[in-house]
Amino acid sequence: MNIGILGAGQLGQMLALAGYPLGNRFTFLDTTGGHSAAIGDIISDPQHQRLAEFLERVDVVTYEFEHLPVALIREIEAHRPVYPSSRAIAVCQNRVEEKALFDRLAIPTPEYRVVESAEALEHAARALGCPVVAKSTTEGYDGKGQAVLKAPEDAQSAWAAIGHSQLVVEAFVDFVREVSIIAVRGRDGEVRFYPMAENQHVDGILRYSVAPLPDLDDAVQHTADGYIRALLDELDYVGVLALELFQTRDGRLLANEMAPRVHNSGHWTQNGAVTGQFENHLRAVQGLPLGDTAARGVTCMANVIGREPASAEVLGQPGAHLHRYGKAERAGRKLGHINVVAPDHAALQTRLDAVAALLPGAPAPAFSFVS
Amino acid sequence: MNIGILGAGQLGQMLALAGYPLGNRFTFLDTTGGHSAAIGDIISDPQHQRLAEFLERVDVVTYEFEHLPVALIREIEAHRPVYPSSRAIAVCQNRVEEKALFDRLAIPTPEYRVVESAEALEHAARALGCPVVAKSTTEGYDGKGQAVLKAPEDAQSAWAAIGHSQLVVEAFVDFVREVSIIAVRGRDGEVRFYPMAENQHVDGILRYSVAPLPDLDDAVQHTADGYIRALLDELDYVGVLALELFQTRDGRLLANEMAPRVHNSGHWTQNGAVTGQFENHLRAVQGLPLGDTAARGVTCMANVIGREPASAEVLGQPGAHLHRYGKAERAGRKLGHINVVAPDHAALQTRLDAVAALLPGAPAPAFSFVS
Repeated sequence: MNIGILGAGQLGQMLALAGYPLGNRFTFLDTTGGHSAAIGDIISDPQHQRLAEFLERVDVVTYEFEHLPVALIREIEAHRPVYPSSRAIAVCQNRVEEKALFDRLAIPTPEYRVVESAEALEHAARALGCPVVAKSTTEGYDGKGQAVLKAPEDAQSAWAAIGHSQLVVEAFVDFVREVSIIAVRGRDGEVRFYPMAENQHVDGILRYSVAPLPDLDDAVQHTADGYIRALLDELDYVGVLALELFQTRDGRLLANEMAPRVHNSGHWTQNGAVTGQFENHLRAVQGLPLGDTAARGVTCMANVIGREPASAEVLGQPGAHLHRYGKAERAGRKLGHINVVAPDHAALQTRLDAVAALLPGAPAPAFSFVS
Repeated sequence: MNIGILGAGQLGQMLALAGYPLGNRFTFLDTTGGHSAAIGDIISDPQHQRLAEFLERVDVVTYEFEHLPVALIREIEAHRPVYPSSRAIAVCQNRVEEKALFDRLAIPTPEYRVVESAEALEHAARALGCPVVAKSTTEGYDGKGQAVLKAPEDAQSAWAAIGHSQLVVEAFVDFVREVSIIAVRGRDGEVRFYPMAENQHVDGILRYSVAPLPDLDDAVQHTADGYIRALLDELDYVGVLALELFQTRDGRLLANEMAPRVHNSGHWTQNGAVTGQFENHLRAVQGLPLGDTAARGVTCMANVIGREPASAEVLGQPGAHLHRYGKAERAGRKLGHINVVAPDHAALQTRLDAVAALLPGAPAPAFSFVS
């Protein structure tokens, strides 16, 4: 089966690496004209003129990036199956629709308001109680299109800085940690859940994900499983879905946002689960049985951002698995990741400390499992 | 680092899949003009005219197939590092040199004679005691260039059938099972050993490999480690080396033959070891630290030969990992393999029985660990 992928970055590359052993071939449609890390046939199409050529070559279409025009996905759907569907994309690229869906499915979220002026933003900040986070309804990812208001008086400058006509304003959550749940749903509706991960962000960019979590109650995992299953079933979703959540001091989960694709917080599954998220996404979109999502040992994924350590230093660390994307170094850019695998969390912490020391500017990770 | 690979079959493809995450890129020199499964830049060179172009593109050279002209490897060595070296290739493609090396390093082998005529073959068969196996000194692999003599009188027809000017004649070994040891040696001389595998052949082609073995004494593994280390050090070898052995009823190991490359009996390591043989070979040839060779669970590799089962059926089996090579079906052709992973040998046997039932013409495996 020839699989078409919209986008040609590292997620596309990792999908291809997982798919060749299944007998798949890949064609990438790259509309950015920028860097391409993909392995396979790349159709570079910055002028949006080569869609027909792309469609002719592929049996099914998926994507590595959800900030795509919904109209484009609908056009493709008229000719080829697209998974996840345009409906999933439409919801995920609009924070208001996303929140409405969470509300409808009784998935708790931080308290929020939707505002369409600086005055309304100020009012919302006052009502929710500062600090609050304001986020553009559309086009926001990796911390872009966001501002923190420490006081209602920050509303004018925040409104101007974000520069969108509609924002979602969220109350700050007194969370213990950020977690995520990743699940995959097949064409036949079968769902499998990965063990939840704890995520650490710096400057809005993911730095570390660890899974499974030693101190996570089974009930919490089951709650998260229920939330993501509700989303998957409601959207008649096919493929991997990621849901980011806050875990509060009293143990509750509040949904932050979701991503309709393979996700950075699931990269640990490449070396730490029986079947990785990339393979399971491909199994789902082509209607194959899903693979076992159980963990193998415990794993921490560390993103390589901005500057790459020497491969020899990384690979000399016990349990370290290197995943480079073949990109040029640039401040704030995701260049690769390292999956550190260990038999237990004590060993993982030791191995992780050694790997973290090789990552320029990466603070030593302090996960909640560390006493 | 751009890695040049001589050959463009499935071993080259699996090397590439293991190497992209390390940041490697691949250029394949395909002198066969036949099927190419490789992922990367392929230089098709059936006329042997494009070697300079190949060398210009690559930093280091390795190969997926040892039946290459030694003169070609020496020519490449004058321009780029080649691992394993031409000396390793020269020994491995000549059974007489290989046996002499085993003898020199005190690695036991089945009793043998070298013959250069049908009369000498008959004499050797009589001296060793029939049955014996006659093998061409050069150009033999996957059961080609071989004949079994049930009686000395078969010498004339066997000599004619093999059609070589020099043969090695081996006494039959009363072995309990065929095993192999795979090890990897770095540029700095560091050596790591994988757990030994038990191998089952049908018609001279490998069908199943299982590792680790529940009933293998540590002392036997250490003996095999010692044999392969002696070979690696003697040849100042860099990369993965495979050594096939017979295990006799009284527990001894007798060396059968070796292969200077990643090996079919090591494919289980892709899903069943911390670091797979393909990644470790690449780490070795580019001077990177070697990865952990420990097993994760227990694994059986089943070759897919001649005809492919439906992917959906394979992937529906617990613990099954599919590796297709993208080749057209043909009797006797290796089209892919399935790694079946389980937490223990009892579970592995159950899973394996289910997978074996999907493989056309594959007898149900009966490993020595099965009671």
